Amino acid sequence: MNFDLDLSIDVLARTPATLHALLDGLTEPWTRATEGPNTFSPFDVVGHLIDGEETDWIPRARIILARGTVRRFERYDRFRHWTRNVDRSLSSLLDEFARLRADSLALLRSWDLTPTELDLPGEHPSLGPVTLRQLLAAWVVHDLGHIAQAVRVMSKQYYDEVGPWVPYLPVLTDHPVPRS
Amino acid sequence: MNFDLDLSIDVLARTPATLHALLDGLTEPWTRATEGPNTFSPFDVVGHLIDGEETDWIPRARIILARGTVRRFERYDRFRHWTRNVDRSLSSLLDEFARLRADSLALLRSWDLTPTELDLPGEHPSLGPVTLRQLLAAWVVHDLGHIAQAVRVMSKQYYDEVGPWVPYLPVLTDHPVPRS
Repeated sequence: MNFDLDLSIDVLARTPATLHALLDGLTEPWTRATEGPNTFSPFDVVGHLIDGEETDWIPRARIILARGTVRRFERYDRFRHWTRNVDRSLSSLLDEFARLRADSLALLRSWDLTPTELDLPGEHPSLGPVTLRQLLAAWVVHDLGHIAQAVRVMSKQYYDEVGPWVPYLPVLTDHPVPRS
Repeated sequence: MNFDLDLSIDVLARTPATLHALLDGLTEPWTRATEGPNTFSPFDVVGHLIDGEETDWIPRARIILARGTVRRFERYDRFRHWTRNVDRSLSSLLDEFARLRADSLALLRSWDLTPTELDLPGEHPSLGPVTLRQLLAAWVVHDLGHIAQAVRVMSKQYYDEVGPWVPYLPVLTDHPVPRS
């Protein structure tokens, strides 16, 4: 499947409601569960996605579209949310994420990007040269990956409860080395 | 985390709305995408979950609760939905799944299961002896695993579009051998 801006926005627009349906009002044994030290809970996933709206995807797209001599992205702090959201409720984070995402997509749509603009280059601080198209595709996959992470982390809380079903439930074993 | 019936129902009750937010009205390049032959698309995932309501979880729980001499479950046809849903829209399947799930959980709640009942035995045709508790825990994990599958299958459609980001997006590589 080739990158398509409208198809990408259709996925990006759904993430807040998907996470709201999955998590809002859910009990803390699920929402605060992790895969071990320094890994994300579902609560952390929402915080991390908020960080992405504020410091990653749109800011990096702006750097590319500025067509300046400095195309290198700022490094992204994957643990910014841990201090930022200490006193926050999950419900308020879900609402904030929905607002930020709606703003991000309104801006993205307003740019009315052409294929030529999607080819514009940026420089990732670790991965090297990238294009705006690759950045936007990575944004879509990043969303989907963190939805997968939230449900995987939840599922692992019942690893010992499913008894002999483990080999039939690959979500329990697909991601053996936890990472945030 | 130990099995808890209320916490389990809280997760099971969310799956229809989560899949609705993720998939209802989404374009077919996403909803009909797969990981290769004989693997499930997001459309198939919803059909498979409907099959679970009709032929798997509650029917198996009934076999256990009947306390009969035959405790062996029927084998589960993981591809029943492929013929069943040939002419169906995804939207109608999402609605049907929501109705079936609501009915299943109303019945499950009405049983008001005791710890002793949760220990009752059944026999899985391949996995051998199981308990009602393990069956219900597996139902929760099965839901979460198929949500993870739907988003993983979608994410892989952009595998070639994210360029150098692949190693930062483990959802693309965690599940290397596709299975349905």
